[in-house]
Amino acid sequence: MAEPVFERLALVGAGLIGSSIARIARARGDIARVVVVNARTEKTLGRIAELGIADVCEIDPVRAVEGADCVVLCAPVGAYASLAAAIGPHLAPGAIITDVGSTKQSVIRDVGPHVPQGVHFVPGHPMAGTEFSGPDAGFSELFEGRWCLLTPPVGTDAAAVQRIKAFWERCGATVSIMDPEHHDRVVAIVSHLPHLIAFTICGTADDLADETRKEVLQFAASGFRDFTRIAASDPVMWRDVFLNNREALLEMLARFTEDAQAMARAVRWGDASYIEDKVMRGRKIRQALIDINQA
Amino acid sequence: MAEPVFERLALVGAGLIGSSIARIARARGDIARVVVVNARTEKTLGRIAELGIADVCEIDPVRAVEGADCVVLCAPVGAYASLAAAIGPHLAPGAIITDVGSTKQSVIRDVGPHVPQGVHFVPGHPMAGTEFSGPDAGFSELFEGRWCLLTPPVGTDAAAVQRIKAFWERCGATVSIMDPEHHDRVVAIVSHLPHLIAFTICGTADDLADETRKEVLQFAASGFRDFTRIAASDPVMWRDVFLNNREALLEMLARFTEDAQAMARAVRWGDASYIEDKVMRGRKIRQALIDINQA
Ligand SMILES: NC(=O)c1ccc[n+]([C@@H]2O[C@H](COP(=O)([O-])OP(=O)(O)OC[C@H]3O[C@@H](n4cnc5c(N)ncnc54)[C@H](OP(=O)(O)O)[C@@H]3O)[C@@H](O)[C@H]2O)c1
Ligand SMILES: NC(=O)c1ccc[n+]([C@@H]2O[C@H](COP(=O)([O-])OP(=O)(O)OC[C@H]3O[C@@H](n4cnc5c(N)ncnc54)[C@H](OP(=O)(O)O)[C@@H]3O)[C@@H](O)[C@H]2O)c1
Repeated sequence: MAEPVFERLALVGAGLIGSSIARIARARGDIARVVVVNARTEKTLGRIAELGIADVCEIDPVRAVEGADCVVLCAPVGAYASLAAAIGPHLAPGAIITDVGSTKQSVIRDVGPHVPQGVHFVPGHPMAGTEFSGPDAGFSELFEGRWCLLTPPVGTDAAAVQRIKAFWERCGATVSIMDPEHHDRVVAIVSHLPHLIAFTICGTADDLADETRKEVLQFAASGFRDFTRIAASDPVMWRDVFLNNREALLEMLARFTEDAQAMARAVRWGDASYIEDKVMRGRKIRQALIDINQA
Repeated sequence: MAEPVFERLALVGAGLIGSSIARIARARGDIARVVVVNARTEKTLGRIAELGIADVCEIDPVRAVEGADCVVLCAPVGAYASLAAAIGPHLAPGAIITDVGSTKQSVIRDVGPHVPQGVHFVPGHPMAGTEFSGPDAGFSELFEGRWCLLTPPVGTDAAAVQRIKAFWERCGATVSIMDPEHHDRVVAIVSHLPHLIAFTICGTADDLADETRKEVLQFAASGFRDFTRIAASDPVMWRDVFLNNREALLEMLARFTEDAQAMARAVRWGDASYIEDKVMRGRKIRQALIDINQA
């Protein structure tokens, strides 16, 4: 077996993402010699212990990170500022702090100031997830074949970035380095806006059902079913994502709205070829995704 | 085996839906003694013959419907008016004409006037589909456990409605009778608007990729992947659906846009509890669908 990437890995947060990392580290053995798991509640931590996917379970985040050469923040991004303020002073010299948060400019803003001299900060975002949350939702194939985007600030230690890259590759992901601002725009359109739309349309449909006092959701055809699946996601995580990627999300929603209005205009005025073109384009994009194995 | 519902069933159109019906009728034997299949092109009809799922393949729709006691229109709804004009005069006295079109007020408008005295017209819509089209996309489980909505105009012969109900039940569907206007509003929100949104957001993302000359679609996270799947659907079918359910679709898009703007405002002003409430609601709706087996 290859040398473990880390001696002591501390996961701060143990839901879908954190517990998936713990499962992988446990199963592989070449990620860290010791895996420390922290969660906010005894309930989650107890479940991690029952699952047997941590070497050490520690409810105090400060104690959890002590002596770790790698700390991964796996909580909702809205919790990062206070978590970083608490653990920052206790990070070991030479350690790496990284994260899995879905937004990156906000994470750099919230965590950056609490990272002491001599500790390396490598923000990251595995582009993998499901609509489920909590320690039982995790599974060791979660990152298999998925992208993990790293957004190290200019001047970040190259060796630290390499170790985080090796870590994610052992988790099954393909790593790409990206500028944080570009990251936030890309995820705003491919992930955050689709979620906002899904949450919204479920509400629109439910209001209609209330209004007509008739079944609506009952007839969820294939189109709608997929939207409700997306909409089943965790409220706290998504609240935090929306609030922490505000500018990019609002920009993408504005672009989408313009495009939807153009489609509405084509429908109203019977512009058949405009509609056909747009649908055809969706088809091409789908085909392109299939070709690059992202479908 | 039960008596077949029909003596001679004619399917006008043999893509995803038409060929699925043909497959079921072939496999079961209690739907019709003879299954006649018509398609627009020799190519599709030849494929139906190769698949061996029709007793008679007939390229001329007029000849296809001659002597049939049930005719099912399975073409895109934009083709219904001219198809009905052509076959109307050749429908057998006492026959039933029905359809599978995704819109119902337009179908009544386009087909109704061509239905001769003594022929029964029972508009229908199986709420089942995939993003694939053509004769090879069909499969005999397509309607299993799905709804089929019938929207017979007031005064339609009750026995004819009963036979169409029996037909769909043997196809595996659960039948519900609905007012055509209500039908069009329900499908506008649960199916047509989600498709319009999916087509649109794929274009918005692709424009962004063009603009930044950078990868965007490559990072399709789970949210976006589902949208591209929906967006892979047939351009002609969806063009026809949008143009033939214009009023309801535009109304639902307007409602959705208002709701999305309210969400945007909450994001802009940091209204965390509003966002959380909306996401929580999505979750509840998903749970409700799971409870009624529509998820
Ligand atoms: N889900 C996805 O699809 C996805 C994909 C990529 C990235 N991400 C990112 O991954 C991170 C975790 O998401 P997840 O899906 O794994 O969430 P999750 O399943 O809800 O788990 C969140 C974890 O964080 C802990 N936590 C919650 N609030 C906390 C706080 N205020 N202080 C300290 N710990 C707290 C929770 O502890 P308790 O259980 O004890 O409350 C739980 O262990 C988020 O930043 C998210 O943006 C998610
Ligand atoms: N797909 C869904 O998800 C879904 C769900 C419920 C209801 N529907 C409704 O079902 C109907 C058929 O949809 P589908 O998905 O089965 O479509 P499809 O796979 O594209 O098949 C359409 C069929 O109609 C024939 N056709 C096309 N244009 C025609 C024309 N102008 N005149 C005569 N025949 C023509 C085609 O013949 P050729 O192949 O020879 O061109 C083909 O056999 C539509 O009205 C649609 O609204 C669809």
